[in-house]
Amino acid sequence: MNNFTYYNPTTIEFGKEKENKIGDYLEQSGIKKVLLLYGGGSIKKNGLYEKIIISLNKNNIEYVELSGVVSNPLLAKVNEGITLAKDNDIEAILGVGGGSVADSAKAIAAGAMYNGDVWDFFINKAKIIEALPVFTVMTLSATASEMNGNAVVMNEDTKQKYSIASVLLNPKISVINPELMATVSKEYLAYSAVDIISHCIELYFTASSHPHFNSRIVEAIIKTVMETTEILLDDPNDYDARAEFAWAAIQALNGLTPAGTEGGNFPNHMIEHALSAIYNVPHGAGLSVVIPAWMKWYEAQNSIQFKRFAKEIFNEEGSAQGIEKLESWFVKIGSPTTLKAANIPRENIEELAINANSLAIIWGIGKIYSKDTIVEILEKA
Amino acid sequence: MNNFTYYNPTTIEFGKEKENKIGDYLEQSGIKKVLLLYGGGSIKKNGLYEKIIISLNKNNIEYVELSGVVSNPLLAKVNEGITLAKDNDIEAILGVGGGSVADSAKAIAAGAMYNGDVWDFFINKAKIIEALPVFTVMTLSATASEMNGNAVVMNEDTKQKYSIASVLLNPKISVINPELMATVSKEYLAYSAVDIISHCIELYFTASSHPHFNSRIVEAIIKTVMETTEILLDDPNDYDARAEFAWAAIQALNGLTPAGTEGGNFPNHMIEHALSAIYNVPHGAGLSVVIPAWMKWYEAQNSIQFKRFAKEIFNEEGSAQGIEKLESWFVKIGSPTTLKAANIPRENIEELAINANSLAIIWGIGKIYSKDTIVEILEKA
Repeated sequence: MNNFTYYNPTTIEFGKEKENKIGDYLEQSGIKKVLLLYGGGSIKKNGLYEKIIISLNKNNIEYVELSGVVSNPLLAKVNEGITLAKDNDIEAILGVGGGSVADSAKAIAAGAMYNGDVWDFFINKAKIIEALPVFTVMTLSATASEMNGNAVVMNEDTKQKYSIASVLLNPKISVINPELMATVSKEYLAYSAVDIISHCIELYFTASSHPHFNSRIVEAIIKTVMETTEILLDDPNDYDARAEFAWAAIQALNGLTPAGTEGGNFPNHMIEHALSAIYNVPHGAGLSVVIPAWMKWYEAQNSIQFKRFAKEIFNEEGSAQGIEKLESWFVKIGSPTTLKAANIPRENIEELAINANSLAIIWGIGKIYSKDTIVEILEKA
Repeated sequence: MNNFTYYNPTTIEFGKEKENKIGDYLEQSGIKKVLLLYGGGSIKKNGLYEKIIISLNKNNIEYVELSGVVSNPLLAKVNEGITLAKDNDIEAILGVGGGSVADSAKAIAAGAMYNGDVWDFFINKAKIIEALPVFTVMTLSATASEMNGNAVVMNEDTKQKYSIASVLLNPKISVINPELMATVSKEYLAYSAVDIISHCIELYFTASSHPHFNSRIVEAIIKTVMETTEILLDDPNDYDARAEFAWAAIQALNGLTPAGTEGGNFPNHMIEHALSAIYNVPHGAGLSVVIPAWMKWYEAQNSIQFKRFAKEIFNEEGSAQGIEKLESWFVKIGSPTTLKAANIPRENIEELAINANSLAIIWGIGKIYSKDTIVEILEKA
């Protein structure tokens, strides 16, 4: 077991009606003025926006609004938020939405306390040393952004989907009311399930040492996500299933599963970022294309763990059967598993591989994941 | 799934040689003077004391020492620490040892900021509203005191072993170097394993609603503890097993396993506290006496979960087989499973039951666990 530091200062306020308390949480944290960040306006239709405003007003929290955050969130919107935050003496960023909103909130929080270009943080040109506090009210569970310090943002000029990570960006408080997630489409539920599973399996398969305890936690998360996804596809209003799904999603990427593992990296995410950077496919849909292909390519490098996966998750004896079953399950829940199904033309594999390799270099795995290797993997998709 | 708040601000510094950094951690936290609290002096024999002093000196951290904390830690020692802390302008409590030292450190931390009698907190007469920061260097894994806000202390005058809980008592930083635990006796390793398993199964069996996800996490912890205990009984120097054991112990009682469960309580701990209060048996040894008896008594009230336990942990089909296998496993690792084996005379069951019932009342379960009921349970032991 590798040495590690575990520190996660985020408070999770989990459960029914907790969104009505967001003003109280901000007030108790000494915040008087926030940037209220959200997406395309669905929160105005379903009444969440009004609840938030009522709670802010009740606690005399001033707010400046910024809407229009899209999935695969854009750097331009982040820069807009940074300008607003600087111009209005904003004390905290309140993101209301899914992972894209939370990620954008974090990037704004970092950028608002920095005199240079926020993109510097994404290309390792500068290190985050301070940030405004972030608060979130989540309407989608997938990225675990609600309880980690990661943010992924898309630079639309350079077609780079890159990330930052700092414990300074961990939300101070995140509100998770599973009821708010009941209106997520079946398509996006499936993509979210794929995303959570991908967070689990990246290190599970690639770490040079992955303690049994971590494997068991990962398997607990995957089993829970698969079980609850199937329940929710049948009945989107099953509160308990929605709640377990949401809480498992958080555990998948809040620092628990990697603690003590050695080595390891996130190749599926790396390759997928190229897919969504160039074709704007939803992150989960891109992942379900990449994962089975990558698993087939990688299996021989860690066949013991692949056999374990097959046995524990699907009660199957062989690695190949485990991969096949996972691929079938992705198809069953409605997430694409081939480039074709995701409407990505085969002839553009080369462009994807160049883009993914440039991220691989930033992540320090450019040698393992050369352009040619990525082409080889994508050809299996 | 029940509403919950999850917040655990403890930093875990896990791994080899991290104890040499304790002075750095204190210094980075702005601490200049600590109360250094430890047990019977084994840390002087094995060199840990010297390492701590070197690190404190290197960082110009002043210290006042208090030794002599015993297992089932005593209120008198806590009061001694409170006086020392108040008289010496102590800024933080540094506990070096096992759960008893960590618990005593927390009680001192709370008492040092309170003008009344610290026992007030234990009998619900006062609420903890501030406390000195606590730091720990752990030499034993069992109680998870290193990552929670709980402390159990024994009032030797009243023979009451009672507890306090507050997030203000969560250690700011806990150092866990599994190497420091390699000298723990086989006996205490077994007792620790029982304690960790007991933390897992209390709510697992008694919660009125226990999400599948929580059950899976609990099962992951139990399987890991059983697997690593067996490895360590064979080879106390197996670092990876020691590390997994230590990390699983923390997850068992740091707030993760209860999150979202409904109802539930800690009856085995409640009854055991009477055993160790009156007979000073080690906590884990007392628990292995109580647990099988309690399980037999309680099984019919939640037979679905008992069947699940038997299947998941022992691959057995029936509740009774699960209980029997657990009892056999306790015997196998060397922890007593009968009052007789723990040298507790049968005729004193009545006295134990009266003591346990008085704690049951404090914990709000005095009606379920009447004196007669506790007698009925203990007779099965």
